[in-house]
Amino acid sequence: MRIAQIAPLAERCPPALYGGTERVVSYLTEELVAQGHDVTLFASGDSITKAELDPCSPQALRMSRDVIDALPHHMIMLEKVARRADEFDVLHFHIDLLHAPVIRDFADRTLTTLHGRLDLPDLQPFYAAFPDLPLVSISRAQRLPMPPVNWIGNVYHGLPRELLSLQHARKDGYLAFLGRISPEKRPDRAIEIAVRAGLPLKIAAKIDRVDQSYWDTCIAPLVRAHGNVEYVGEIGEHEKSHFLGQARALLFPIDWEEPFGLVMIEAMAYGTPVIAFGRGSVPEVIDDGVSGFIVQNVDEAVRALARLDSLDRTSVRARFETRFTVERMARDYVDIYERIATASQARGFIAARRPMLERRVV
Amino acid sequence: MRIAQIAPLAERCPPALYGGTERVVSYLTEELVAQGHDVTLFASGDSITKAELDPCSPQALRMSRDVIDALPHHMIMLEKVARRADEFDVLHFHIDLLHAPVIRDFADRTLTTLHGRLDLPDLQPFYAAFPDLPLVSISRAQRLPMPPVNWIGNVYHGLPRELLSLQHARKDGYLAFLGRISPEKRPDRAIEIAVRAGLPLKIAAKIDRVDQSYWDTCIAPLVRAHGNVEYVGEIGEHEKSHFLGQARALLFPIDWEEPFGLVMIEAMAYGTPVIAFGRGSVPEVIDDGVSGFIVQNVDEAVRALARLDSLDRTSVRARFETRFTVERMARDYVDIYERIATASQARGFIAARRPMLERRVV
Repeated sequence: MRIAQIAPLAERCPPALYGGTERVVSYLTEELVAQGHDVTLFASGDSITKAELDPCSPQALRMSRDVIDALPHHMIMLEKVARRADEFDVLHFHIDLLHAPVIRDFADRTLTTLHGRLDLPDLQPFYAAFPDLPLVSISRAQRLPMPPVNWIGNVYHGLPRELLSLQHARKDGYLAFLGRISPEKRPDRAIEIAVRAGLPLKIAAKIDRVDQSYWDTCIAPLVRAHGNVEYVGEIGEHEKSHFLGQARALLFPIDWEEPFGLVMIEAMAYGTPVIAFGRGSVPEVIDDGVSGFIVQNVDEAVRALARLDSLDRTSVRARFETRFTVERMARDYVDIYERIATASQARGFIAARRPMLERRVV
Repeated sequence: MRIAQIAPLAERCPPALYGGTERVVSYLTEELVAQGHDVTLFASGDSITKAELDPCSPQALRMSRDVIDALPHHMIMLEKVARRADEFDVLHFHIDLLHAPVIRDFADRTLTTLHGRLDLPDLQPFYAAFPDLPLVSISRAQRLPMPPVNWIGNVYHGLPRELLSLQHARKDGYLAFLGRISPEKRPDRAIEIAVRAGLPLKIAAKIDRVDQSYWDTCIAPLVRAHGNVEYVGEIGEHEKSHFLGQARALLFPIDWEEPFGLVMIEAMAYGTPVIAFGRGSVPEVIDDGVSGFIVQNVDEAVRALARLDSLDRTSVRARFETRFTVERMARDYVDIYERIATASQARGFIAARRPMLERRVV
């Protein structure tokens, strides 16, 4: 198939550092190429891909000192995409909502994966205004706040099978917290759980500027107060392997409706079980009692840690391989692409025949 | 003519308080209606107009507590506009660049007035990517930083003739500074000019949050240091009349490429001359020696104040009536609308004939 992938321009594909959406787009794109599809990637010009790259900005916007406003650059991308729309069987958008009024003429050959949270008040009237836009969710939970829209699929994220590999951590190792220091990720809960369980905790997390005062006033004092808690700073991709792979378990004590949570499947790929609060996508991603434990509060999290030995790292990894590889993600998407292309061809056939039919009636 | 006006949603039309673009759109819309045109205004739902209002958000976004992100609301507006595009002879956009990739199919029936500064680095590649988009500048100076684009006109702003009226201020009155407290508006220069000329200065200006420290550290100390300088705070439309109308002159000592500068023509409408630094639109808006003096530095401004008596308030007002009324603005725009509609009809005629011509060739 001739497939267009339209990525955000904030980071390159794959991102140099942080950037969940661009990572997923990159994994999907490379897998589709490997499967023999003809893929064009609309992305920042410093992206690295085996697909045809149509560069829509010289480099990733977050890396460009000249860039104040990302919007004009995305408008340039949309113009490029619209000009080339006829070249593709399917156009797959990952830029949330910017393209909605642009793709009117070929919306039936598009799908849009929504990568973020959908419970923001501005989004309700927006999606109500585009009830026909073909949308894909990244978890069933992500859909809950939405008005009736045209969901054409739900596709969980996936990682390349060999990117991360099973690691046999020491049973007496540490607990891991990985992500952003922010109130909705609840590092304070992670600390409370570790302290009550009497286990060491390592926190690897970046501190965004908006979260600096939360770190200063809420989290840093807790880290200092507890000898078993260590803050190791922000870590890169290459350090993740050791950090997550050597952990006894990942703590994911979120306090928000997480739409997916890539770190959970990263942990699973290393064989590291996940102790996760049952919000958002968690009940869909974690198989309770196999790849981790789903808990509702700190008490349950502490009790779950006592049962960690009942989980087998090989089984955790096996569940990753069954459910969260990029092959599975690409297969799910190709199923949707084929449905779209078939329906679109059928409509094209009908449209092409219509003048003839009408003439016959006359 | 059937005309669509597409306004920003930040403020209602006309704005309750600040909002230069929405004010101009409102003046133009009401004048077009008065001239007998069939006008549809796409704007916030609390707008007040004699045109048909197509409400694109329940109320002005800046007034809505629920609104975090203005973008989805503008996307909804674009969808509404695109659905109704066939109803109009001309569609006139005032939302900068958001619509550029949306209007591909009817771009030849549109014009876009650019209301802001165009020297931001993100805009150069954007406008280079849309070389055919029909654009209107609000001053010739505004065009300078732009790559080659499709300028179809230059239309200076205008105010309703009777909105502000000639006032015979006392010759020994104060100098006025009206605008934002910000480094590019240079209130510090206004103070220096007034101090050196030995004249009283009143500053009526709002202080945006980003400019608070500029006020605290640079301007407030100057105000306190000089007995002839008074800060009167932010003033509303109804207070402007007294503030500008009773002033001996308006000081406009800008240090940036002002694209238009509505306050200059407001002063002129009251008969108040303007002492303006010759940046941006100033040489196009002020007739040196008639409606004010154009200066290049503080020395020249001080010398110009000594010559104020050579200007006649009635002549200043007359120049406003000749050049900057809403009738003149609407006339300029209608000229452009007619050119667009005629060209578009001609293209439609050719397009309609093409199949016939082609059949003949076969």
